[in-house]
Amino acid sequence: MSDPIQTLIHALTRLPSIGEKTATRLAFHILKTPSESALQLATAIQDVKEKVRLCARCFFLTGEEFCAICMDPRRESDRLCVVEEPLDLLAVEKARSFRGRYHVLHGALSPIDGIGPDQLRIEPLLRRIGDEKITEVILATDPSVEGEATAIYLARLIKPMGIRITRIAHGIPMGGELEYTDELTIGKALANRRDL
Amino acid sequence: MSDPIQTLIHALTRLPSIGEKTATRLAFHILKTPSESALQLATAIQDVKEKVRLCARCFFLTGEEFCAICMDPRRESDRLCVVEEPLDLLAVEKARSFRGRYHVLHGALSPIDGIGPDQLRIEPLLRRIGDEKITEVILATDPSVEGEATAIYLARLIKPMGIRITRIAHGIPMGGELEYTDELTIGKALANRRDL
Repeated sequence: MSDPIQTLIHALTRLPSIGEKTATRLAFHILKTPSESALQLATAIQDVKEKVRLCARCFFLTGEEFCAICMDPRRESDRLCVVEEPLDLLAVEKARSFRGRYHVLHGALSPIDGIGPDQLRIEPLLRRIGDEKITEVILATDPSVEGEATAIYLARLIKPMGIRITRIAHGIPMGGELEYTDELTIGKALANRRDL
Repeated sequence: MSDPIQTLIHALTRLPSIGEKTATRLAFHILKTPSESALQLATAIQDVKEKVRLCARCFFLTGEEFCAICMDPRRESDRLCVVEEPLDLLAVEKARSFRGRYHVLHGALSPIDGIGPDQLRIEPLLRRIGDEKITEVILATDPSVEGEATAIYLARLIKPMGIRITRIAHGIPMGGELEYTDELTIGKALANRRDL
């Protein structure tokens, strides 16, 4: 087999859940596909690396300074949903139960991995709560050990600020991950959020 | 969500067996991944489209005029294995039971799809049989309706040339596809080939 194909297969196997067999099939599909659509894929990969950055306010992903949700005047401005990762934000959005804004931490507290409060976007979250006159913070970190620890840590920090702080309900299976949860369960978890 | 990400997700869903959920996960993985390895993937896709062409002799894929198998002097030069697609060639190679050379038809006869003998690389196959002093042609087309029809068609054309023409044994499950078959079964099918 010629080298460019092997190189492509190798590059594809580095993607998550793509083994050598799947990578081989994808590579040969790309070979057969019209050049135009293969080059669109290559360009899309480059663009995403060059053009996407973090929203200056909520740290979701955007091509501009602020993300579409932060720029949307129809969103409730006094309510924040805190998530670990951008994919978690998308999962909550899909449930269509939340009309406020978000804050993406980019991780969860995990002393064993060396991830403390300084590695997460916690400092800007606290600043936003004051600046944006937030009345409620919903903690939607994963129901994992790290996610729970992060929620408890944030609740302790935020409670003295005198605003409502809630945790989404554990309708989401413990030990699972938010991004895999179906919309109905996420909607239910939002509705059943409890005060901390 | 910003546009470059949506564009990438859309481009990824056009790959086989990649739904929107998988495409989203892959896109966010690419976002998180170091730029270098994401750009390697983009470059590999471009390279494969620009540099890979068909071997001038057997129509497998190559970056040169001839493929590595055609250029390998250790391969038996008087024996040809005829397959439908490049991926089928790789499946036979993996079985390590065949030491001759190949001929890739790039399809199978399928009147309903408008694929007749002229759409396949049959003419060059007949020329090779004479030019390269071939003594045996092994037909390894898929055990599907089209693959069987192609094998029978080729057997009728080649038999009058006075060489041995064989069909790989139907150890491979009927209705299946060659590229999915495990190496042992392909090895067995090669060993049990029968004269047509």
